[in-house]
Amino acid sequence: MNPGDRVRVDRADRTYEGVLLPSSTDDHLVVKLEGGYNVGVDRDGADVDVLAEDVYEIDGTDSTGADEGESSEIEFDDDLPTISLISTGGTIASTVDYRTGAVTAQFDAEDVLRAVPDLAGRANYRGRVVANILSENMEPPLWQDLAQAVYEEIEAGADGVVVMHGTDTMQYSASALAFMLETPVPIVFTGSQRSADRPSSDNVMNAVSAVEAAKSDCAEVMVCMHASESDDACALHRGTRVRKNHTSRRDAFETIGAKPLGEVDYESEEITFRRDYQQRGAVDLAIEPELEDDVELVKFTPGMDPAFLDIAEGSEGLIVEGTGLGHVHTDLIPRLEELIADGTTVVMTSQCLEGRVCDRVYDTGRDLLEAGVIEAGDTLPGTAKVKLMWALENSADVEEAMETSLAGELQVRSVPWE
Amino acid sequence: MNPGDRVRVDRADRTYEGVLLPSSTDDHLVVKLEGGYNVGVDRDGADVDVLAEDVYEIDGTDSTGADEGESSEIEFDDDLPTISLISTGGTIASTVDYRTGAVTAQFDAEDVLRAVPDLAGRANYRGRVVANILSENMEPPLWQDLAQAVYEEIEAGADGVVVMHGTDTMQYSASALAFMLETPVPIVFTGSQRSADRPSSDNVMNAVSAVEAAKSDCAEVMVCMHASESDDACALHRGTRVRKNHTSRRDAFETIGAKPLGEVDYESEEITFRRDYQQRGAVDLAIEPELEDDVELVKFTPGMDPAFLDIAEGSEGLIVEGTGLGHVHTDLIPRLEELIADGTTVVMTSQCLEGRVCDRVYDTGRDLLEAGVIEAGDTLPGTAKVKLMWALENSADVEEAMETSLAGELQVRSVPWE
Repeated sequence: MNPGDRVRVDRADRTYEGVLLPSSTDDHLVVKLEGGYNVGVDRDGADVDVLAEDVYEIDGTDSTGADEGESSEIEFDDDLPTISLISTGGTIASTVDYRTGAVTAQFDAEDVLRAVPDLAGRANYRGRVVANILSENMEPPLWQDLAQAVYEEIEAGADGVVVMHGTDTMQYSASALAFMLETPVPIVFTGSQRSADRPSSDNVMNAVSAVEAAKSDCAEVMVCMHASESDDACALHRGTRVRKNHTSRRDAFETIGAKPLGEVDYESEEITFRRDYQQRGAVDLAIEPELEDDVELVKFTPGMDPAFLDIAEGSEGLIVEGTGLGHVHTDLIPRLEELIADGTTVVMTSQCLEGRVCDRVYDTGRDLLEAGVIEAGDTLPGTAKVKLMWALENSADVEEAMETSLAGELQVRSVPWE
Repeated sequence: MNPGDRVRVDRADRTYEGVLLPSSTDDHLVVKLEGGYNVGVDRDGADVDVLAEDVYEIDGTDSTGADEGESSEIEFDDDLPTISLISTGGTIASTVDYRTGAVTAQFDAEDVLRAVPDLAGRANYRGRVVANILSENMEPPLWQDLAQAVYEEIEAGADGVVVMHGTDTMQYSASALAFMLETPVPIVFTGSQRSADRPSSDNVMNAVSAVEAAKSDCAEVMVCMHASESDDACALHRGTRVRKNHTSRRDAFETIGAKPLGEVDYESEEITFRRDYQQRGAVDLAIEPELEDDVELVKFTPGMDPAFLDIAEGSEGLIVEGTGLGHVHTDLIPRLEELIADGTTVVMTSQCLEGRVCDRVYDTGRDLLEAGVIEAGDTLPGTAKVKLMWALENSADVEEAMETSLAGELQVRSVPWE
């Protein structure tokens, strides 16, 4: 049997019939069922019958016509909004990419609907591939390409944009776009924690919910992922406040320090917003994609060698993930002072993640402020890094920028003691 | 007015009478009320009358006798357990240290009961000062001093130990002691998120609950801090699984990936354990305090310069905080491979914090495993650093040690997809 064959798989009293797809693991078979949904079957103890060879075109293998009937053009529906789907790779994009292959820079509505039939009737689709990488390989220049692609899609008339992205670094990319773009339409990142070849894949529900969110009134950069372990709703997180908090759960993404912006109910397709947001059309489309590359992030832990900070020697910026209210060992403060004197912008965040940096309470903090360290408030450390990269290129006053909310990353000041 | 004066403070319709204490901030007055409880009063708008000068000995100033009547010896009660209180500094210790001063290496039951009268009648107390530092200045040699002091106290007959510690790095110190010590009695870390000079201070309830936990049957290294924002219960966290998750909330500490071990009800003083634990007397007292100092922790973020890893050049150990299931940019893998070839032990953890590292799912992970990276399972990154420091000195097989739970830091393997 080979990927592309039509197969019947029997295992543990269940039978699956469909097209065999490439699997990301050796111990699972992946079968694309009728209707486009993929299922993963444990190879161990599975009986496989090949019903027909090579019926489906996969990564350039020839199709022998079984899906010939599906190649008709999808007609444009004037009554539906146009949603641009931008693929950067990752688990979710693999659904689409099985057919188009890694080298194809465009995909069309047909490809989308073949991969996720549930998207039919919700929008007119445009498709675009910016990258095809696992998101741990995402890099600042790709954030710039992605921002440019989103900009062009909106300029070309997209009523909303869905970015398919690996989950590992989704929060960093979402933050980057939130700083780079002023957007009059929703920009919705979505991904998948379980690939389409897993029985519990979240890719269809996340993609459908993201498209609904992209049609909504919320013109912000959002992340749309499972709200809980069940398949009933996706949460909409502000891109600059979200964090992947679990390695494998489908509801791994959480808004830190606040409730999510809203929720997409999967059955009713209704979207409920629970917080204020920037409305569709409130601002004009604009892009400022410049970034300073030379910014690092250092997480302080007890016993850290002060020489560790040499990494920031000559750098433009340094994010410190301190302890508690924003502290490091007193021995590190003179080194930070030197770096600041040499022109490095040093910004303090907290490894606590929840709550805000407040360096006016204890001696260590006051010494840090005197040394010239800037406080990031409750900005998440990863978001602070992306923001500093952006602010160093685009803000006249970097300190003021780091202490001001530019894209919802810094929440209204709360008094830490009350 | 000076610290040590007896004062009456009127502010906003409230009157406080007591001894003026040194304040950690310029904008608050700290008054020790009758009964030993301290209160913080906003200096702005406060009327202060000095009733008597210099009535209380503070940091070596002379006492003029007002507390002379309190200097009687506290009698040893055969019916009560003996709890050793060890102070390392931090917000909670300031309650005690106001009287004994920074240079005093011992304090007695009287000092303890003057500071926290609610502790009376619960135990016989021994007191010991190991350090008097803010916990961001805690260092591995101090972990060793602390372990040695705890060891000696238990050897001398303590039925339980309470360690008063700053909250910033409490989780690291608790982990260090959990690896260094085999203990037949409870070792309970506690601290305070709001100093005694704040109206909402948590120091009394945390100290009382910690003493109750130290009298319990759970012979593990625990952290005892507020379970919620209200004053009804403290949670007991396993030292190797706890994390300070908020910069300022009193319930900042959370057990990651599990429920806390148990809870101390403040009113009833009842302790409920919700998970299995090591029982009192189950093991003999033992200490292995050696640590390898030359271990660093690097948190990977997109755009990280591969040269960042040069910090680990020649090091004995490196903890990587990767993304998702335990990934870094592919470009970093050859550098990690070189470090491993040169003798550095490299261990992968996840910045997700919840969930476990599983590098067998995606290509990046498989490449990391092939390069010789060790997976830390669901061990928290900070705990993994402390463990590696310990394992490099005390384990015959470091890889096996990092993949085995030594002190509850690694939870029973769960299948990440189910």
